[in-house]
Amino acid sequence: MKIGVIGGGQLGRMLALAGTPLGMNFAFLDPAPDACAAALGEHLRADYGDQDHLRQLADEVDLVTFEFESVPAETVAFLSQFVPVYPSAEALRIARDRWFEKSMFKDLGIPTPAFADIQSQADLDAAVAAIGLPAVLKTRTLGYDGKGQKVLRSAADVTGTFAELGSVPCLLEGFVPFTGEVSLIAVRARDGETRFYPLVHNTHDSGILKLSVASSEHPLQALAEDYSSRVLKQLDYVGVMAFEFFEVDGGLKANEIAPRVHNSGHWTTEGAECSQFENHLRAVAGLPLGSTAKVGESAMLNFIGSVPPVDKVIAIDDCHLHHYGKAFKVGRKVGHANLRCADKATLEAQILKVEALIAEQ
Amino acid sequence: MKIGVIGGGQLGRMLALAGTPLGMNFAFLDPAPDACAAALGEHLRADYGDQDHLRQLADEVDLVTFEFESVPAETVAFLSQFVPVYPSAEALRIARDRWFEKSMFKDLGIPTPAFADIQSQADLDAAVAAIGLPAVLKTRTLGYDGKGQKVLRSAADVTGTFAELGSVPCLLEGFVPFTGEVSLIAVRARDGETRFYPLVHNTHDSGILKLSVASSEHPLQALAEDYSSRVLKQLDYVGVMAFEFFEVDGGLKANEIAPRVHNSGHWTTEGAECSQFENHLRAVAGLPLGSTAKVGESAMLNFIGSVPPVDKVIAIDDCHLHHYGKAFKVGRKVGHANLRCADKATLEAQILKVEALIAEQ
Repeated sequence: MKIGVIGGGQLGRMLALAGTPLGMNFAFLDPAPDACAAALGEHLRADYGDQDHLRQLADEVDLVTFEFESVPAETVAFLSQFVPVYPSAEALRIARDRWFEKSMFKDLGIPTPAFADIQSQADLDAAVAAIGLPAVLKTRTLGYDGKGQKVLRSAADVTGTFAELGSVPCLLEGFVPFTGEVSLIAVRARDGETRFYPLVHNTHDSGILKLSVASSEHPLQALAEDYSSRVLKQLDYVGVMAFEFFEVDGGLKANEIAPRVHNSGHWTTEGAECSQFENHLRAVAGLPLGSTAKVGESAMLNFIGSVPPVDKVIAIDDCHLHHYGKAFKVGRKVGHANLRCADKATLEAQILKVEALIAEQ
Repeated sequence: MKIGVIGGGQLGRMLALAGTPLGMNFAFLDPAPDACAAALGEHLRADYGDQDHLRQLADEVDLVTFEFESVPAETVAFLSQFVPVYPSAEALRIARDRWFEKSMFKDLGIPTPAFADIQSQADLDAAVAAIGLPAVLKTRTLGYDGKGQKVLRSAADVTGTFAELGSVPCLLEGFVPFTGEVSLIAVRARDGETRFYPLVHNTHDSGILKLSVASSEHPLQALAEDYSSRVLKQLDYVGVMAFEFFEVDGGLKANEIAPRVHNSGHWTTEGAECSQFENHLRAVAGLPLGSTAKVGESAMLNFIGSVPPVDKVIAIDDCHLHHYGKAFKVGRKVGHANLRCADKATLEAQILKVEALIAEQ
């Protein structure tokens, strides 16, 4: 079976590493000459709107999937004429636009921070008056890793901010005094079977994920699964979806969804019986889902900007390096370390060792 | 770091799957147009003696390693002029010739079945008189998976058998009434540090490995490590080496060595903290070795001739498919299943399920 992937970054690379042992081959469509997934499959170097190359991809593969959600709707619609595409155009349409996403949460009775659609500075002024400060203004589309957003703390922050973010459609979100950030990685098969990995505690730094720790019997697991199930069913979703939540007053408020394998699920490569990457491929290929059970106690630490010396990373017990083969650049995710330990105490000790290495960079 | 691999079969493929997350790239030299490792790296399609392509490989990579031991000595010598080569020419010289191999065992005081060098039918007749029947006649070089050998049970089997195996240098081995076959996968770093995986129980069918089960606290572990250490030290070996032993009268007799990652170590991909593939790459690249500790209870079952339907293989709990992407052909290894279970009882039950699937083929 040959899988087409729109995007050839690290998520595509890890999909190929997981799918090759299942007998799958891969083709990646990505305009970047140095797309890091290209080492593991065919590289169609073309823009996402290039119909000639999209047609070539569709002709070569059995199905198409994505490693990012900002794919143009026209790309998905075009491909869907020729080849099965998972997740669906509708799932991508919702996930790539914060307004549609939040509106869906509201419609499905899933708690989410107060929000308002912002099409102008006047909209913003009115929404700030209604929702209050602090609040966060985010572009409706194309934001990631803290890009395309601004925290508004005082009236001075509000003035001229719509123009500052490019005068594009935005969403204002009320600030939530959360006690923690958790994510749930779910996978749903073509026949509707759904499995969930254990909730993950996430720590961000300047909007970029820094540390994920897989939980054990988290008291909010069932609630997170309930909320996520509503979305997956609503979208008749196929594949892996990540759900990010704020922990607030002992409950959950939905922050956002990602219709793809997700950074906060990278620990599953060693830390779960079947990884998020293999389970995504199983789902889109119509194969039986794999177990989402944990193996040991796991955490993931991102390498941002540079990967510490390889010999030092792999000298740490229980540490598994995942190097993306990308050029080092400030603020860029270029690799991660997965720790899989026998118990929580060991895990905590090993996290400190990886953090010390990162701090030396 | 770019690694050159002589040979582009499934072992090369699994090396690349293990090395890519360490940030390594791969180039495979293999004359076969359909070399299955080629999906994961550059493919230099050339004969092993093609000096132009060997030179190109040497220029492109940081070091060269092998996925099979029958590499011509001239190839190794030629490459060694330009680039580090692991394991060494001397290790390959010994390992590819059963006479050198057995003589080394004898010199190092490692028990091995009675053996004799056979250069003619007269040599064979004399050796049979000395060693007795049953015995096994094997070509000194190029034998694998039961090929290039014949079991001699009666005087009639001996007549004309030297010519039957091609009138090439052979080795006669006394038959050993063994109670079991075990193998030890060892890895030795450039600085001499050596680590061993737990002993593996192997079951063969018509000379081809069928089932490997990783042991727990095997009473012969220390003895196997002692014997293997002598060989590794003698050869100043770098990389993974597999040692096959017969279990005889509560002791071990050395059967053969393989200077490479080995089929009986495939279970380590999921079943050990660091796989034989990653540890081989760590060793040859001068990186710290990884833990050889088991994770759960593991077994490996080979798929020979064909891979059962993928959906059925991966529907078995605890089962991890490793499909080589090779054309199916009678007697050819085309994939394997690794089982990693919580306990031995579960493992035994799951082995039966995979065996039932294989029997349906």
